[in-house]
Amino acid sequence: MTATLAYAAQDAITALGPMNIERREPGPDDVQIEILYCGVCHSDLHTARNEWKNTIYPSVPGHEIVGRVSAVGADVTRFKVGDIAGVGCMVDSCQHCASCADDLEQYCDNGFTGTYNGPAFGGDNTYGGYSSRIVVRQKFVLKITHDLDQLAAVSPLLCAGITTYSPLRQWGVQKGQKVGIVGLGGLGHMGVKIAAAMGAHVVLFTTSAGKAEDAKRMGAAEVVISKDAQAMAAHQGSFDFILNTVAAQHNLDPFIALLKRDCTMTLVGAPEHAHPSPSVFGLIFKRRRLGGSLIGGIRETQEMLDFCAEHGIVSDIEMIAMKDINAAYERMLKSDVKYRFVIDMATLGAGQ
Amino acid sequence: MTATLAYAAQDAITALGPMNIERREPGPDDVQIEILYCGVCHSDLHTARNEWKNTIYPSVPGHEIVGRVSAVGADVTRFKVGDIAGVGCMVDSCQHCASCADDLEQYCDNGFTGTYNGPAFGGDNTYGGYSSRIVVRQKFVLKITHDLDQLAAVSPLLCAGITTYSPLRQWGVQKGQKVGIVGLGGLGHMGVKIAAAMGAHVVLFTTSAGKAEDAKRMGAAEVVISKDAQAMAAHQGSFDFILNTVAAQHNLDPFIALLKRDCTMTLVGAPEHAHPSPSVFGLIFKRRRLGGSLIGGIRETQEMLDFCAEHGIVSDIEMIAMKDINAAYERMLKSDVKYRFVIDMATLGAGQ
Repeated sequence: MTATLAYAAQDAITALGPMNIERREPGPDDVQIEILYCGVCHSDLHTARNEWKNTIYPSVPGHEIVGRVSAVGADVTRFKVGDIAGVGCMVDSCQHCASCADDLEQYCDNGFTGTYNGPAFGGDNTYGGYSSRIVVRQKFVLKITHDLDQLAAVSPLLCAGITTYSPLRQWGVQKGQKVGIVGLGGLGHMGVKIAAAMGAHVVLFTTSAGKAEDAKRMGAAEVVISKDAQAMAAHQGSFDFILNTVAAQHNLDPFIALLKRDCTMTLVGAPEHAHPSPSVFGLIFKRRRLGGSLIGGIRETQEMLDFCAEHGIVSDIEMIAMKDINAAYERMLKSDVKYRFVIDMATLGAGQ
Repeated sequence: MTATLAYAAQDAITALGPMNIERREPGPDDVQIEILYCGVCHSDLHTARNEWKNTIYPSVPGHEIVGRVSAVGADVTRFKVGDIAGVGCMVDSCQHCASCADDLEQYCDNGFTGTYNGPAFGGDNTYGGYSSRIVVRQKFVLKITHDLDQLAAVSPLLCAGITTYSPLRQWGVQKGQKVGIVGLGGLGHMGVKIAAAMGAHVVLFTTSAGKAEDAKRMGAAEVVISKDAQAMAAHQGSFDFILNTVAAQHNLDPFIALLKRDCTMTLVGAPEHAHPSPSVFGLIFKRRRLGGSLIGGIRETQEMLDFCAEHGIVSDIEMIAMKDINAAYERMLKSDVKYRFVIDMATLGAGQ
């Protein structure tokens, strides 16, 4: 075991602070990574504060990890020391169920092991990317081919990127289709960039008129203020797919009404308080569907990273020092971030 | 115009009673049908009592019509006098939108014309099957190939049959799949029969233990009492498709939890009061979908009728006289019908 500096929550109400954790020595199939950057996902906050009532303390959040390989096990073939590598939301899964066989480890029948708070599904606790180092089995480590000066902005792709890419791919988004993205936050801004790169005519729905300029810069062809009933009505029945990234409770019906016959709105945000119940008529009258999607599989995550590298896509980020994580959480709660905080892990040892 | 005896609601609160209506003389493309039987759908009651707030009075319900052709227009090629024919929920649509081009007139972008209360979508009022005769354009008339002694029990196929057949086909139900049918009423009992004939392993979900024997006779391999949490848990994540026919408000989550990854529950009943809002987690964690479906297109209705004739499928019915329709409505509200009332239209002129 090697002592590793981390930033941890000790309980649901105390601010996160430094802590020494232990990482295993890399086994034959393991990759050891010195973490350079870690994106800050809303799930980090939910877990640190036990908002999902399943947190095991101490808790070290972080699952948008980019770093440099510092050691590899004897059986590791895909990575060598010095490579740039990424780790997302999962570090293991059963590898023998139908979902794992389909490269959809996120739906593992036996429960994948989360990069942090893994024991939600059994086993030892896992500690995430708010740390100087991580050891992960090869299969769950991603190759990063972006330019070196983009690495901080690449880290959010490991969760926000794949969470939006996967449903866009699942529902076959392609050139010429009209695709809606609801919400321009950490997930939504990735959804706009990726859907636009797929060739779709992207319409961004937001409650904040102030975000229109950013959305267009990111690739949205149109921006609709979702509170404007007339603007919404003008788009009725015209969308091939809608990706709804908003986790806050809201009325789904005005968005469902925008779908063409046989088309789908996928939710990737889970609200703390249930959305108002969607109208059954809205589903019945054009045979529409409401779905959900959870991150993406490892193979698809690699595909997404390669796609983003090819199209020059990274996240819009605001870099912070590790010690500022608690303040960042407070700003995140006010949606005061454009559009993802990323921790510069070089600051981990400083200013405690 | 020809005077035609019918049974009509004059307003939302008065019992239905006899009334003379006018039917058009058959035009070149029209088929005139002497109605033999008309099934009683819950929509008839909703419309008669203006529960959907769109009823135009007088209102003549009935859209599960089987009768004998008594005249055809000069351009009619598919029917001749003496043929047995059916009419379902639609008597016209725009014929030039994308949905009509796809033989999905029920989703006509310009609104199909309902067999009764048609002006909900514009045009003159239409009068349904609680009448001695109807005149319908050829395209919306169905061929009936069942045996003559089955005709009464065939009539509910025109709505209850196609409403369940269409989503079962849409989602590709086939031999060996595990398919759930929720509710054993007019729709559900058709769903069980049709899904079983498609070769599926059918599980019927009901709150009434007393329906188990009927369900098995109709083709269900298993019956689960949906209030029994343990019995429900035993089926978790195992269904390829679930058809939910229950129009009463109920919790959808226990059924969504039964779906495999990437599988769908389709709702064909629209509750008067919204269902509790379904859990977003239930959709996200196995990428499941909640959908809706509305009757079926004319081509698909013919396919369903042929399928049912081939497999010997008809509805389980209770025949009533026209004058007993008001009492039948009251029994329908108590779910006191096994499993569909059908009006013997020979009784229309009697006992007024």
